[in-house]
Amino acid sequence: MSIQTDPRPIGLFDSGAGGLTVLKRLIEYFPDQNYLYLGDTARLPYGSKSHETIYKYSHQILNYLIEQNVKMIVIACNSASSTWSESVFKDRPVVNVIEPGAQLAYRISPLKRIGIVGTRTTVKSEAYVKQLKQIDPSLFVKQQACPLWVPFAEEGLVDDPLTNLIVYRYLHSLLSENIDTLILGCTHYPILINSITKAIGKETNIVESGLAVVDLLQNKFLFKTHPSNSPPCCHFKVKMTDSNDYFLQVARQILDPLQINHVEHVDL
Amino acid sequence: MSIQTDPRPIGLFDSGAGGLTVLKRLIEYFPDQNYLYLGDTARLPYGSKSHETIYKYSHQILNYLIEQNVKMIVIACNSASSTWSESVFKDRPVVNVIEPGAQLAYRISPLKRIGIVGTRTTVKSEAYVKQLKQIDPSLFVKQQACPLWVPFAEEGLVDDPLTNLIVYRYLHSLLSENIDTLILGCTHYPILINSITKAIGKETNIVESGLAVVDLLQNKFLFKTHPSNSPPCCHFKVKMTDSNDYFLQVARQILDPLQINHVEHVDL
Repeated sequence: MSIQTDPRPIGLFDSGAGGLTVLKRLIEYFPDQNYLYLGDTARLPYGSKSHETIYKYSHQILNYLIEQNVKMIVIACNSASSTWSESVFKDRPVVNVIEPGAQLAYRISPLKRIGIVGTRTTVKSEAYVKQLKQIDPSLFVKQQACPLWVPFAEEGLVDDPLTNLIVYRYLHSLLSENIDTLILGCTHYPILINSITKAIGKETNIVESGLAVVDLLQNKFLFKTHPSNSPPCCHFKVKMTDSNDYFLQVARQILDPLQINHVEHVDL
Repeated sequence: MSIQTDPRPIGLFDSGAGGLTVLKRLIEYFPDQNYLYLGDTARLPYGSKSHETIYKYSHQILNYLIEQNVKMIVIACNSASSTWSESVFKDRPVVNVIEPGAQLAYRISPLKRIGIVGTRTTVKSEAYVKQLKQIDPSLFVKQQACPLWVPFAEEGLVDDPLTNLIVYRYLHSLLSENIDTLILGCTHYPILINSITKAIGKETNIVESGLAVVDLLQNKFLFKTHPSNSPPCCHFKVKMTDSNDYFLQVARQILDPLQINHVEHVDL
């Protein structure tokens, strides 16, 4: 039995609903899989918390997912990924989003001029910069913390003039460096893709964590993709550490047209 | 010995640094007191979390403050205040910010047309509306959740054109109702006071939680104020559940010109 045919679920977690952008991509490419998603909504956001606190929370969640008998774990959160470097935990593979994001960005960048946007914690960790410099010490890389993007994404302020302004506010320092590829170093940021594309133009490549994980599962774990026109699968469960109608609404917006029928509450 | 002359500290808590706006007012009016402030930065913000989760966190913190031998507790957080109605906990008085805020607003409102801005949790709880309607069922009251104000305040984006826009975005529905008094139902909001005053004009009364607590301590607990030109006192300790340089920076901005020499880390 390959890891792809193992019927146990793939476990994913994030501080909140942002990691659902990763889940959505995985379902799109691998609809034959089962998924268990945990959003730590009782303690979100992680992006402005310390390394030690995020590590402690991630450790608790990894243990919980192992207890739920997942076959592998995807850390669908850049802030948590930046604090967690082990690729195996209790015999289960652990995929973080940073290494595959850096690999994919490097591969598709024509002039090797790469920009990174992320939360304050992710930027401070320099996790992407270190990964990229390890691949090619000569590439140009510049990062920018965008602390207000997560709140705008969580408010669902998509295609709003204020969102365009706040997106541009943080991107202009990268734009002046003529980057050709932009890593969205936070799983919430794909929600703001329209404003981001408006600011950087369509010629700049965008790397999102969900596609980076798809890339890794194909190349390292030899997963085979299914045609994207296959019917959307419903073999996924979403759990949250805080039961809050508002987050369910955000989760529904992100996963649309996939339906969530039920969000289970977990006390960690 | 009156409660004012009791040398034990007054305990205050908030999800993060916002409650320091209350601490600052208390120090300004009662510089003879000792203070112990706890910011639950590891789990902030509370404003978008469920009633049950905020209640659980508040309960833990109240127990912690009692262990630290405080003489009374000020819940310097509107979201937590909206979930906690008991006025005594383990023999110690507990002051929440909502009841005194409603009392003060009612007293100073000339035409009894009151607006309330707050986090989603505070607005959903209708805590201010219920308090105000209990005082006078005939008054006009309208509330508005402003979920993006806390992130802007925490970013220190004061006097920024984007802050003016986001403040106006949420206030305009209240402005069209000709309110004469606005309750800032979140202890972060005084940080945005310049933008708020620009939007509502100088004729509208503003009630902030810090001044509401000062009012309560004077009227219910018979505290005597000291002249505001007395030298700033330094008998206060600030503790946080997450040790993070960034929050120390925000805390310093709020408390300025008072100095914080040290923030102690507490693991709850």
